[in-house]
Parts: sequence; structure tokens; C-alpha cells
Amino acid sequence: MLVLKTLSEIRLALEKVESPLGLVPTMGAIHGGHIALLKKARSENATLVVTIFVNSTQFSSQEDFASYPRSLEQDLIILEAEGTDLVFIPSDEEMYPKGYETRVDVGRIGQILEGQFREGHFLGVATVVLKLLNICHPDRVYLGQKDGQQCLVLLRMMEDLNLGTELITVPTVRDSNGLALSSRNALLTDEESHAAQVISRALFSTKEMWESGVKNADKLRQHARRILTEEPLVKKVDYISMVSCETLQELSIVQGKTMLSAAVKIGSIRLIDNLILEPVRDDLGKDIGKRES
Amino acid sequence: MLVLKTLSEIRLALEKVESPLGLVPTMGAIHGGHIALLKKARSENATLVVTIFVNSTQFSSQEDFASYPRSLEQDLIILEAEGTDLVFIPSDEEMYPKGYETRVDVGRIGQILEGQFREGHFLGVATVVLKLLNICHPDRVYLGQKDGQQCLVLLRMMEDLNLGTELITVPTVRDSNGLALSSRNALLTDEESHAAQVISRALFSTKEMWESGVKNADKLRQHARRILTEEPLVKKVDYISMVSCETLQELSIVQGKTMLSAAVKIGSIRLIDNLILEPVRDDLGKDIGKRES
Repeated sequence: MLVLKTLSEIRLALEKVESPLGLVPTMGAIHGGHIALLKKARSENATLVVTIFVNSTQFSSQEDFASYPRSLEQDLIILEAEGTDLVFIPSDEEMYPKGYETRVDVGRIGQILEGQFREGHFLGVATVVLKLLNICHPDRVYLGQKDGQQCLVLLRMMEDLNLGTELITVPTVRDSNGLALSSRNALLTDEESHAAQVISRALFSTKEMWESGVKNADKLRQHARRILTEEPLVKKVDYISMVSCETLQELSIVQGKTMLSAAVKIGSIRLIDNLILEPVRDDLGKDIGKRES
Repeated sequence: MLVLKTLSEIRLALEKVESPLGLVPTMGAIHGGHIALLKKARSENATLVVTIFVNSTQFSSQEDFASYPRSLEQDLIILEAEGTDLVFIPSDEEMYPKGYETRVDVGRIGQILEGQFREGHFLGVATVVLKLLNICHPDRVYLGQKDGQQCLVLLRMMEDLNLGTELITVPTVRDSNGLALSSRNALLTDEESHAAQVISRALFSTKEMWESGVKNADKLRQHARRILTEEPLVKKVDYISMVSCETLQELSIVQGKTMLSAAVKIGSIRLIDNLILEPVRDDLGKDIGKRES
């Protein structure tokens, strides 16, 4: 495994690798969710490139850039064990040198949900991922479903800008209590970690309600909110949302492939999670509201 | 010469060509300025790709998108004669399909000068050129110095987004009266065409004044303005500008490589032109204000 820190080093290294090339972009603090991405990317590509870059431009001024968990030494051990070929760990100066100006704006779908609560977040995400794609030219890029809106925003960006890379979304990995794995989980106290289970519990319970036939989105959102607010360590519910996966428009009646998502503050730590509701259609083309799998 | 209209056609054609690849992006209405780009690109690359796309998103609502000159049949004859290998002529729908959202913003340097008078112009330019670069993956892209700010904006975008393409700027081609060649010249009446000579006359005269030792930018701008406003068919001077080529900051004292530019309405047609002032330094490192060539 080669660890590379500059653009010229990674470019040189990429000249010598075999195709197809899979890219797993990360902010480090590698956990089981990343490992699922690594395993899938490793199995589908001749070369596996991982980037570790805690991207300052996707954190808003009030956010947790400074306290975002960093565990580089441990990360490199895991990446090596998962068969990574190249790790690119650029500095801020390498990615955003003096005079840097350009930003990529995906429009409305980057301004809602996370974009509404994290100002400029998706400008930062879209721009840094575009840069990493331009540097590495992967055949496939692997992202976790846990950051559901991020997947949809980046898919939009990649299609709109005619990038030749395929986006592969990998299912969310959860701990035995249902909590979606996230680097920020490392910042939770034991008590908060226990309380954070309420997020997935609320989402899965809402999904069951939908499967049982409830299609009114307000009723479903209220159901999720009730479960969340029963937990005393839930300090704030930023949103409970049900949007069309195609348009990211908030729904009043759930129909078509839908993302049910929530952003919640457990203590001082903000966590997000989502489930995809995929209607199954009967022979008459009518949603029957159950998942095939 | 292959003429291709869809993304899948151009992608397929590009798989079969030799490197290095030179790209000349155009909006058609090919003239002597484009021909200079084509000849340079042809001489430096194994494959020459030309795009013709009148990009609606770089015209503001009040602008001349509908009346922009189009001469496709004639264009193709010239492109073939200049040894073009592939011509990509996409439709609006091919470039901006339903659901399209993404825009590339180069920040401040796209908001001044042309950006101030043509709202959103450089968002449109940067985005479409990024798309064309992602579609064609050229080794080199060729642009005319006549659109001076465009060259600087696209250089910024290409550097910031880590595109592996080299930008080659080709000197402005002028007619025997000094008028910079432009597709929009086709829209001028004979009388306006004659009057439009005043633009280059004003710029060259101002450059001479600078060469004679005047470094006060206001004095130089006033000089240019006086010459322009003496011409009755000059209906409006949008700007006369002297900016640093590095920062695009408007200067009060001319020093370092400087772009002297003007945007002028001749009748109803808006024209732009520029000259680069390149100080020569003497042995003591002091600007002596003459060009080497």
C-alpha cells in the first residue's frame, strides 16, 4: 500500500496502476461502514484508491471541523488490511492553494434538508468530490447510503457534469442496536450512544407503519417525531423528512421510491440516518407498500 | 471528419482516436480567430476535436442568444479544410437534459468586468467548458486571447478543479483595420463595422501612452474613454479596465502583467477587446514599460 500526500505523487502513482479503478473517498476515522465500502470496491476493481481528507469547506463556521474525529494511524492499518493499493492524504494547502476560488453548486437539492441546516455543506462536498474524481479518474466511486442526500447530490453532479464515473451506493452498516455507524459516534458518551438508538428505532417503526398501509406523510413524520422526542437526550430534531428519491421534493403522500430521513442532536452531537422506502407494485401497477427483500 | 451529435456518439468516437488530443470549443460562426486556434491545435496534437454549441446558459435574459450568428454549413467546410478529426454538435437537450441543476462558480473573478454586465455569464461559460472537458478529456484546450477574462476564469477553474488539461491561449486576430475578429462582427452594418475600429485604436493608443511612461491607471482609462466617446456610433462604454492578470484586481498604478480591456456598444452590438501590457524589467528590476516584442 502506497501512502501519497501530494498531487504530483498521486498522479505519478496512478499512471502505473491497472484498470478498473475504484475510489473510496473518506474523511478518515474509518469504521465498519467504510469497511463495507472498501470490501465492495476491492471485490469489483483491479485497483483500490482511498482518500482521507477532512474537508474544511463542507463544515459551516459553527460546526465540528476541529473536533471531527481523526485516527490516521489506526485508519492506515485497516486500509492495508482491506487490500487498499493507494491512499491519498492531501493537506489543506494541496487541495485549496492560495488563490483557490471555484465551487460547484448542485442547486436546490443541495439547499434542502442537510443543506438547510449546514450552510454551504453540499457546495463543499460536491466541490471536493469533483476534485478527487478529477485527480483519480476512477471507474467507480463508492459512497455509503447513510449519507443519503449526499449520494443523490453527487449523483446529480456527476451526471450533470458528464463525469464518466459510476456511483455505487453501499447499504448502511448498523451496530447490534441498530445505530447507523458514523465517525461522529466516537464523540458520543456511553449514555448518549445508548440514547442514539432511538433514531433508527423511530425510522424503522415509521417504515413499518408505512408498510402497514399508512401513506400520509404528515402522519408518518409525526409518528417518528413522537418516538424521537420521548428520548430525553434528544436535544433537537432538525428534521424528519420524506422526499422522493428522484426529485428530493418533500412528499405529502408517500408514493414512488422515497427517502425517510432524520437529523437529530443527541447531546451536542448531530447525527443523521435514513431508510429507503421502495414500494412494490402489484399486477395492476398499484403500490402495495411492501419491500421485496 | 466525423460529425457527432450525441454524447454516446462522441464517447464512442473518442475511444478510437490517438493522443494527444486538442480541443477547440466554439459557438460556431467560425472566423479567422477560430482558424488561428484550429491551426495551432492541429499542429500540436494527433487528434483535433472541435465543439460547436451556442450555449444558452451564458447569455443573460436580455442578451442576443436568439440573434447570435449561426452558419453551420459554412463552419463545417472550414473545419474540414483545417483538418479537424471530430466535430461535436450537441443539442440543448443533450447538454442540459430535464432535471439538470449543476453550476460551476469561479467566484469573484467571474463577477467583475464581463460578469458585472452579463449576469451569470461566467457560471454558464465555466460549466459548459467543464462539461466539454469531461466529455472529451483533451490534453490541451485552445482559447482566443480576445476573450481575455474568459481565459483567466477558465484557467482558474481548471487549476482549482484539478483538471489535467493544459490551457493554450492564442493571440487575437485582427482585420486590416485593427478590429478584433468576433462572431458578433457579422451583426454590424458597414458603417458600424467602420466605427468599431475605434475600440482597438483606443486600446493601442492607451498602450502607447503606457509605453511612453504613464503608469497612472485613471489617466490611461480616461485617455481610452476620450477616444471611444469621440466616435458617434459608440452608444455606451460598459467599461475600460486595467486589471492585474494574476488577481484580476482593478489597478490604480499599472505594474506587473496587466490586461487593458474594454466593452463597448457600437449601435446595438456589444463588442469586447483587450491588450496585455507586459512590463519589461531593467537590470535593477524596475519596470521600464516596454514590451520585448
